[in-house]
Amino acid sequence: MTAAIPAAEKGPLALICGGGSLPLTVADLAAKRGEKVVLFPLHGAANPRDFENRPHQWLHIGQIGRFVRLARAAGCNDVVLIGSVVRPAFWQLRLDLRTVIALPRIALGFRGGDNHLLSFIGRLLEGYGFRMIGAHEVAPEILVPQGSLGHLQPTERDRADIHLGLDYLRAAGPFDIGQAVVVANKRVLAVEAAEGTDAMLARVAEMRASGRVRTPVGTGVVIKAPKPGQDLRFDMPSIGPKTVEGTARAGLAGVAVLAGSTIAAEPAELVKAADRAKIFVSGESGGTAR
Amino acid sequence: MTAAIPAAEKGPLALICGGGSLPLTVADLAAKRGEKVVLFPLHGAANPRDFENRPHQWLHIGQIGRFVRLARAAGCNDVVLIGSVVRPAFWQLRLDLRTVIALPRIALGFRGGDNHLLSFIGRLLEGYGFRMIGAHEVAPEILVPQGSLGHLQPTERDRADIHLGLDYLRAAGPFDIGQAVVVANKRVLAVEAAEGTDAMLARVAEMRASGRVRTPVGTGVVIKAPKPGQDLRFDMPSIGPKTVEGTARAGLAGVAVLAGSTIAAEPAELVKAADRAKIFVSGESGGTAR
Repeated sequence: MTAAIPAAEKGPLALICGGGSLPLTVADLAAKRGEKVVLFPLHGAANPRDFENRPHQWLHIGQIGRFVRLARAAGCNDVVLIGSVVRPAFWQLRLDLRTVIALPRIALGFRGGDNHLLSFIGRLLEGYGFRMIGAHEVAPEILVPQGSLGHLQPTERDRADIHLGLDYLRAAGPFDIGQAVVVANKRVLAVEAAEGTDAMLARVAEMRASGRVRTPVGTGVVIKAPKPGQDLRFDMPSIGPKTVEGTARAGLAGVAVLAGSTIAAEPAELVKAADRAKIFVSGESGGTAR
Repeated sequence: MTAAIPAAEKGPLALICGGGSLPLTVADLAAKRGEKVVLFPLHGAANPRDFENRPHQWLHIGQIGRFVRLARAAGCNDVVLIGSVVRPAFWQLRLDLRTVIALPRIALGFRGGDNHLLSFIGRLLEGYGFRMIGAHEVAPEILVPQGSLGHLQPTERDRADIHLGLDYLRAAGPFDIGQAVVVANKRVLAVEAAEGTDAMLARVAEMRASGRVRTPVGTGVVIKAPKPGQDLRFDMPSIGPKTVEGTARAGLAGVAVLAGSTIAAEPAELVKAADRAKIFVSGESGGTAR
């Protein structure tokens, strides 16, 4: 577990907020720890209603100059990127002058996988003198701990599927593919690439409905882990109630993630959903090995 | 290229026929070469109309005893398994006595990937004294040759995607996953597991429609190759006009397969469909390296 950074005389924390409830959770946890937080919700990703009662400054994706100016004016040194952002089309970017200057480098960032894009933006901001830190460093409470989150535990058969899944993710890591795989009775049923975990789980549900997958309901695990070398400050695997619901619909036994390297969004709802659906959610050790 | 087995004094060839037109093509090519062929279409897979004017004996999947009896009575020694078969549910098997005796071993075959099931059935028939041979050994014309099948050739950028795809398939091979992957601009967009190549291509089309995939139309390649150690006598990757149509709908530039290790079903229609859709179909060298 990473220790939280103590609030010293450093300036307030700049929180660039994508979609979902996680940015606000992180903001609240950091505030509870005594941090001053400045919110920068992203147009098209963050929900305007969430920010109605909190001071904030909107950003378009691509407005690097605006962010640099506002964050410096607020005295920010540390920056956290948190929440979901759908990779925008290049022509959808609202570019300001600083961004245009960085364009050739940004185009490079756009060519690789999502992993490259996010860590690229982080490195770009570092070039302007900011310190990029992971959301889990200011709010370690958001990480999945080791062990089972709800009432259920993986069986021996689930354990075998989990190990095969982690082995596969390790082998596929160098290809900057997705972060998740579904394994049932030691057979790989689905591999995540650009479609995302929810779409992969929906596919398993469809394959079961069509008879293409015939392992009994309650067999199989979705395994999620960061890619080797993935910069967890910018792109941490995450699970939430939606993951649990997708897992149940896919007829699987549970969800396994790497403890300490995975964010649990809405952890209370996640545990409730897991126990209701009789799905295990397990934090596996072995995070450092990856 | 594998040389065809000459028709000697060995008995007729037993052809166990799954779905699609390929079994009949193989039967005709083998007959042209002077082989006597006995057809065993599989219920639920082969189309009854295709066999109306040809002598044949229907089999249910699981009727190993019936097959052994009929094939021996016909004097068959060599057996070819060809055509598509959807993995049946265990309880759907019509089991006869010989199959029941083999049950514990069959259950083992059902536990692994499709690869295991097919080569397992082959090994089981070998145990009854038959010689299992690949369809490409009696009809090498069905294999994709090296080079482009239609008018178009892969570009340098396509070549880079093809190499990345082949590298990924090699790395994922030990996990008995699918045989195909989609790569565009060196980014892995989709990985095939239990859903099959057509479903994977449909997914890429959907991701493009929803804006999740934003590479320009005409960028990217679907790469298909056997798994390392895959027994090509029982399970050879194959492409057909449907693959080309799916590739076009997915907005990709073309299809790349390993020359000499991939079956082209309906090759004339495949080339016509490729040229019409402006899709390349390329047989790559390097089959032995896998």
